[in-house]
Amino acid sequence: MADKIIYMDNAATTPVRPEVLAAMLPYFTEKFGNPSSIYSISAENKNAITTAREMIAGTIGTTAENIYFTAGGSESDNWALKATAEAYVGKGKHIITTKIEHHAVLHTCEYLEKHGFEVTYLDVDENGMVDLKQLEAAIRPDTILISVMFANNEIGTVEPIEKIGAIANEHGVLFHTDAVQAYTKENIDVEAMHIDMLSASGHKIGGPKGVGFLYIRKGVKIRSLIHGGAQERRRRAGTENVTGIIGLAKAAELAILDQKEITEKEKKIRDHLIARIEKEIPYARLNGDREKRLANNVNFSFRFIEGESMLIMLDGKGICASSGSACTSGSLDPSHVLLAIGLAHEIAHGSLRLTISDKTTQEEADFVVDSLKEIVEKLRNMSPLYEDFIKNSK
Amino acid sequence: MADKIIYMDNAATTPVRPEVLAAMLPYFTEKFGNPSSIYSISAENKNAITTAREMIAGTIGTTAENIYFTAGGSESDNWALKATAEAYVGKGKHIITTKIEHHAVLHTCEYLEKHGFEVTYLDVDENGMVDLKQLEAAIRPDTILISVMFANNEIGTVEPIEKIGAIANEHGVLFHTDAVQAYTKENIDVEAMHIDMLSASGHKIGGPKGVGFLYIRKGVKIRSLIHGGAQERRRRAGTENVTGIIGLAKAAELAILDQKEITEKEKKIRDHLIARIEKEIPYARLNGDREKRLANNVNFSFRFIEGESMLIMLDGKGICASSGSACTSGSLDPSHVLLAIGLAHEIAHGSLRLTISDKTTQEEADFVVDSLKEIVEKLRNMSPLYEDFIKNSK
Repeated sequence: MADKIIYMDNAATTPVRPEVLAAMLPYFTEKFGNPSSIYSISAENKNAITTAREMIAGTIGTTAENIYFTAGGSESDNWALKATAEAYVGKGKHIITTKIEHHAVLHTCEYLEKHGFEVTYLDVDENGMVDLKQLEAAIRPDTILISVMFANNEIGTVEPIEKIGAIANEHGVLFHTDAVQAYTKENIDVEAMHIDMLSASGHKIGGPKGVGFLYIRKGVKIRSLIHGGAQERRRRAGTENVTGIIGLAKAAELAILDQKEITEKEKKIRDHLIARIEKEIPYARLNGDREKRLANNVNFSFRFIEGESMLIMLDGKGICASSGSACTSGSLDPSHVLLAIGLAHEIAHGSLRLTISDKTTQEEADFVVDSLKEIVEKLRNMSPLYEDFIKNSK
Repeated sequence: MADKIIYMDNAATTPVRPEVLAAMLPYFTEKFGNPSSIYSISAENKNAITTAREMIAGTIGTTAENIYFTAGGSESDNWALKATAEAYVGKGKHIITTKIEHHAVLHTCEYLEKHGFEVTYLDVDENGMVDLKQLEAAIRPDTILISVMFANNEIGTVEPIEKIGAIANEHGVLFHTDAVQAYTKENIDVEAMHIDMLSASGHKIGGPKGVGFLYIRKGVKIRSLIHGGAQERRRRAGTENVTGIIGLAKAAELAILDQKEITEKEKKIRDHLIARIEKEIPYARLNGDREKRLANNVNFSFRFIEGESMLIMLDGKGICASSGSACTSGSLDPSHVLLAIGLAHEIAHGSLRLTISDKTTQEEADFVVDSLKEIVEKLRNMSPLYEDFIKNSK
């Protein structure tokens, strides 16, 4: 089985679905016109974008005029935060977020701090859950924005978005959520959940890389992040990434269509993975909330293990996994998310994220657990820390 | 011939070349890994990006570490200007640009003006050429940046970039050029031309939409426009648009490889179009420099004509053309470029841009001129202004 690739890193990126690629293809070479041009061959592109915008709007319970296409989740997050800061600076300079946000939010907050804004980074509990009382207590008269991710990209915890939205709404504070991991996986209704801005990305849902969107509720004051041409109703300049937009919408359409079935399949495999790992591998800790958890996320810390060695050995068996976010690999720092849920540095370092898809089979899951058992045992046998621990516990 | 589409709007966008699409295809569905991941299937993506970066670097005479991939020309322009403003504010708050820049530069300058920067918008002569003496005179001790486009997107005038670079260099001022239209068409050597930053776009050169790059000379202080993950050497966050980057590099490779041949073909057709229009259509003015002009650009103003009507009638004959930049269509304002070269409003309104490719045939060119003659005559016969003019000139 080692010749076969088992891809368990769907939170990092996903293959483009064949139906999605098929929908995109004609727009590369044939229907290639610039949607802003006025001749008839461009009308087809313009219409395709309109249809895509309507499709996307429908998936989160809003209308097309509130959807703005971007180059991806990071741009959407940057845009939401910086535009709010710029437009609402008259009201105040305080922003509330959490310690477990994606770096696209955290580093943007740090940027804003350098420009005179004050940011409260909320703690989370041991499962990565935001404390609503703490959130409400953090709101000040000068608070202009609450940004809390819909679901965490590393540990899969799904935050109480509807309740956060209600609190934000009650206090007249804007609410942005980075839904890059949750989009099409969790049910999202921006009206019921009082979400004012929402970021999502194409390549996490079977669409292409390099495209995403930002939902902005009508009435929210908007400033551009990218100035120039009149695209996206003068809010986001640059010739529309027509194929990307069509691919994003098609991927969203398919994912929403099959959402129930996909979720059920994934949960079954996810819970099988969790159950076997907890039963068969000692000194393993499940990270993230057991119940309020993305259907495709498994995240464990294995004591006495160096995460990178584990990944390299899994790769040797054809298993693609990660220690956390793909965006931070190459860094030697332990995950900020795992530290925020209270893990010690050395335990955070021994973490593994497996993010499955509806294509993942039980056979693959079993092969991964079998491989993991073997690898964890081998690595622990090489670890002086583990040796000491076993000696002392005898 | 009206059943056939004659595409003469290559400055607005170009079809993706089949070889480019072929190079991109495997990376959608098969080699889809996140380049930041550490397992071996992602190494292929990472390597493909490295190769693309080296390819692009070679086309402008620099090395790979100075190339940063973006979502397109507009993002590149925004990044160059805003990052310079942020990083060099300690030196000063003065920027020099021209009145004929793309809106991605002009609107970014306006944004910076709102944030306390001062911008000098240089005049151009009747051909759209920057005056070097005026440029030099505008430099002040607090000038931090000169941004002059390599070639104009509407009238095709190629600016004296090497001389501007020399002046900027002599005065210790950074020099950015928007080369979206010139890239792969004009010879670019960032060393010889003293260019510190250069913006380019994929979809103008037979590559895909939604991707571009910014060249930033080593040593220039860089600030991010999009904060987040560690991609692009921590300078531009967001999962790499792998297919876009590969497509951009392939398109650049092919365009550069055939540059001489393409330029010769285009010039021949361009000059044929210009000669016939000047000879056969009265009261027509060629806009842009006759000599220092992009090989694929033809731009005329026809007196007593409403540009939009002309475009609609051309479209009826299957001819895709534009009145100026695609990014500003839908707007009723006349082109800022045509006003800057001294055209009166009503003459600027009657302008037509034909941007050909190496695939454009003489037969197509002739059909376009024949159609244009007919359309111009028809529209003038409907124009009371033309009627008055003819009456008075008798």
